[in-house]
Amino acid sequence: MDAPLLNKTTTKEFRSRWIEYIYGLQDTICAALGKLDGKAVFKTDDWERAAGKGGGGRTRVMDMGAVIEKAGVNTSVVFGQVTDAMRKQLQMDGDSWFACGLSLVIHPLNPYVPTVHANWRFFELYDGGGYIKDRWFGGGADLTPYYLFEEDARHFHGTLKKALDSFDPDLYPRYKKNCDDYFSNTHRDKETRGIGGIFYDHLRPGSEAHAEDLFRFQQLNGDTFLEAYLPIVQKRKDNPYGEKETFWQEIRRGRYVEFNLIHDRGTLFGLKTKGRIESILMSLPPRARWVYDHHPDPGSREDELLQVCLKPKEWV
Amino acid sequence: MDAPLLNKTTTKEFRSRWIEYIYGLQDTICAALGKLDGKAVFKTDDWERAAGKGGGGRTRVMDMGAVIEKAGVNTSVVFGQVTDAMRKQLQMDGDSWFACGLSLVIHPLNPYVPTVHANWRFFELYDGGGYIKDRWFGGGADLTPYYLFEEDARHFHGTLKKALDSFDPDLYPRYKKNCDDYFSNTHRDKETRGIGGIFYDHLRPGSEAHAEDLFRFQQLNGDTFLEAYLPIVQKRKDNPYGEKETFWQEIRRGRYVEFNLIHDRGTLFGLKTKGRIESILMSLPPRARWVYDHHPDPGSREDELLQVCLKPKEWV
Repeated sequence: MDAPLLNKTTTKEFRSRWIEYIYGLQDTICAALGKLDGKAVFKTDDWERAAGKGGGGRTRVMDMGAVIEKAGVNTSVVFGQVTDAMRKQLQMDGDSWFACGLSLVIHPLNPYVPTVHANWRFFELYDGGGYIKDRWFGGGADLTPYYLFEEDARHFHGTLKKALDSFDPDLYPRYKKNCDDYFSNTHRDKETRGIGGIFYDHLRPGSEAHAEDLFRFQQLNGDTFLEAYLPIVQKRKDNPYGEKETFWQEIRRGRYVEFNLIHDRGTLFGLKTKGRIESILMSLPPRARWVYDHHPDPGSREDELLQVCLKPKEWV
Repeated sequence: MDAPLLNKTTTKEFRSRWIEYIYGLQDTICAALGKLDGKAVFKTDDWERAAGKGGGGRTRVMDMGAVIEKAGVNTSVVFGQVTDAMRKQLQMDGDSWFACGLSLVIHPLNPYVPTVHANWRFFELYDGGGYIKDRWFGGGADLTPYYLFEEDARHFHGTLKKALDSFDPDLYPRYKKNCDDYFSNTHRDKETRGIGGIFYDHLRPGSEAHAEDLFRFQQLNGDTFLEAYLPIVQKRKDNPYGEKETFWQEIRRGRYVEFNLIHDRGTLFGLKTKGRIESILMSLPPRARWVYDHHPDPGSREDELLQVCLKPKEWV
């Protein structure tokens, strides 16, 4: 473990800046999405954890918009004692913990506009004296299109890559592969949920200077999100579509549900630790469909998307 | 353990009769559902497990019917060596195993007609010499209405109870409670998936005479299924409905998906042991919907159903 035993004052100041950044980012993203949609507005639910559990969050949800069928942009600032369940399931060796992050999922109405998910989080673990035992950043963003537009895939990946490259050109290839490996329906021949993006976790600072570097790294990734996603929405939101495209969108959203409920560590951890259900499950799509043994026609636009999920590609 | 170390000839004959019963029941149920629907027909997929794994099954699926939107009536006859994963996850202490059962899920189109699920299964575990170490029957049937009709609930539970009572009047109350406890979305304040039915497992014969009793018990339960369910379909299938009822049906089907993917032991075991995905997931509804923090209006027909899921009732 490289993390120093920081005193409570230092760590409190660092946490406060992170919390402030996360709430600010939530405001920025919600404002941009509200402006984009023009019809629906975000509803805000401030919530607190049950008595004896520390913290709460701000869930912001929009639905039935002109462009966005359902979106959740959620923050949480939670802390507490390490429970036996956490020790066992997460191999957490400490006395108490703190976590703060933003998690978002946007499901647009038009099947030509991809669903997107992103998350940026910070976690700290303390010993009995309240000093840091361990801490790390994690996060990422990934795209789930229903129809493939290679230029959109290149734009999304390219924008994320540019941000990572400004820190270290080795990061994108690693975090891109992490993402393909993680968002995989292993029960379906490792079919990926979408066309990926980047995913990283357990970025542990080795010094205070390194912690500041990682903080800036997270900020740059968070700040890059709208630039990576919004131009794609703008470009595709008025594409004409019909029942066929909606049907395929619902089939793929069924796979999205499968991933989130069967494999996603965040969702399962939330369910097992009795988190706020509506905030955890806001990630689920508004509509989903399951058809027995469904396969798109070989060579169709639908099959083209499926093939890049079965065999992830390098986009940039 | 009461089960005697039966020799291979005895157990083979018993298994054969059970397999024959299960395939016959599949034919009977599919014929009745096909006749009821009048439009859609069952498609049959015979499948075999991958090389090195024993057995296979017969998946029979119907969809887009006049009455039935999606139904699967599946049998499987599978066997193999006990793997490390089975030892660990199922605490199975043996050398090899055999399982044969029928599992069905029927999702009707009309929101006034309930979804139904039923399953009857037999499991054997052998020592290194091929003699029985353990064996048991399990099964049950449960109803998932979207709108509550008390007389339908009484008919379904009453029919199942009548069959159990002919063996032992103590069984129904126990198996009814098992069912409410099992089909529970524990992550949603223990909201049940539907209005239950019966559920039993690990019925272990203490003698050969007892094994024959349990065989007859399973048969009676299997044979009772159509009597418990079909009259309800007949009574409600022509009820007029509109978008409001379909919307609520999809919301409840979302809860069905949550239960099956998060909690159902059979589904999770199938996914973890790399079973045949399309047969395992045929249980998922054709359509589902998730709306953030959705609550039906207090006192509405929708709320009436939700209330009996939050607080299971005695129907007979």
